[in-house]
Amino acid sequence: MREVYQEQLGDLAEELASMSTMVGTAMERATKALLEADLTLAEQVIEEDVHVDEARARAEEQAFGLLALQAPVAGDLRTVISTIHAAEDLERMGDLALHVAKAARRRHPQPVLPEPVQEYFAEMGRVAVDLCGRAAAVIRSRDIEAARDLEAADDAVDDLHRHLFTVMMRPDWSHGVAAAVDVTLLGRFYERFADHAVAVGRRVVFTVTGSMPTS
Amino acid sequence: MREVYQEQLGDLAEELASMSTMVGTAMERATKALLEADLTLAEQVIEEDVHVDEARARAEEQAFGLLALQAPVAGDLRTVISTIHAAEDLERMGDLALHVAKAARRRHPQPVLPEPVQEYFAEMGRVAVDLCGRAAAVIRSRDIEAARDLEAADDAVDDLHRHLFTVMMRPDWSHGVAAAVDVTLLGRFYERFADHAVAVGRRVVFTVTGSMPTS
Repeated sequence: MREVYQEQLGDLAEELASMSTMVGTAMERATKALLEADLTLAEQVIEEDVHVDEARARAEEQAFGLLALQAPVAGDLRTVISTIHAAEDLERMGDLALHVAKAARRRHPQPVLPEPVQEYFAEMGRVAVDLCGRAAAVIRSRDIEAARDLEAADDAVDDLHRHLFTVMMRPDWSHGVAAAVDVTLLGRFYERFADHAVAVGRRVVFTVTGSMPTS
Repeated sequence: MREVYQEQLGDLAEELASMSTMVGTAMERATKALLEADLTLAEQVIEEDVHVDEARARAEEQAFGLLALQAPVAGDLRTVISTIHAAEDLERMGDLALHVAKAARRRHPQPVLPEPVQEYFAEMGRVAVDLCGRAAAVIRSRDIEAARDLEAADDAVDDLHRHLFTVMMRPDWSHGVAAAVDVTLLGRFYERFADHAVAVGRRVVFTVTGSMPTS
């Protein structure tokens, strides 16, 4: 029984790690679509979001299977519930990449981002994709230190996010209100994306240590 | 066993319904704080958010207790997992009310909202609070039709949210970029708040019918 449980739990972790890679790729493409006004890439992200939703449904089914057949208690039960939460975080990350892609499509062939903020988004995109790679590694390795490192990368996104506001508030911001609205919403999408990646890491810490890290 | 299970499930539903009332009150006060630049009210919402987090922890503990002691399967299992998701939605709604209160505090004694958008926020606030009351009723009654009605109220928030952008894009918007950034973020908080209230209703439909409504 125990062996079957461990094997099923391993399969479930693998599903989550692969979801993390999937949403990382989506955010990488969405960022490129945004920066290069690439409609084809934006549409690819939009079409492929359904795969993230399917992966989430599979992960949840696997978790239900574990709960129903193995009836885990105590720590094992918390581990399984934690994977259900992580799958929800990852699906939400897919939705946020989708929002970025939709913004790129909505403004096409115009670029969405004024020049002074482009480099911030390029960097937020790089960190977001990196966070997904790290989250996938953490899910597989259950390495608590690596999970905690996710928080530092998230701080970098928060800093970039705050800088965006500074840029928009400068008296020489000549791009008007419409661009500021787009930049505000898009910045928020990246910030939330990074938050969810950190949440995935925290859930892994929880499954290993039995308690949630305090942030 | 079955009777104990039903009783525990009823307690859990009551905890969720009371959370819904709690986040509705938080959003009502946060909206008033925002519209009237009321610092005391803003600080009350900020201080009291911890009660929402505690209620969520209690709900999750109750759900864990049910899973561990009753080991529900099939539909019952899905019901319990669904309550865990609903508790997460409700906690997030509390966070969003908190964000609104923090915006009111950050700008105090200045009002955050320029006059032309104030009525939109007053109305989004009213609908958001109404959604919480309805969600609480739905959790208690498990009335599928009432759950579906939540979606219509959410559409009203989406409409108001879209109108905000129209107001900001008008050539006569004289409030600058900083106010537009605040309005954009705050509008997003209300929109997400309403989305989560609908998600709570959808989870109730799921626990009654065994399948998620398609939106």
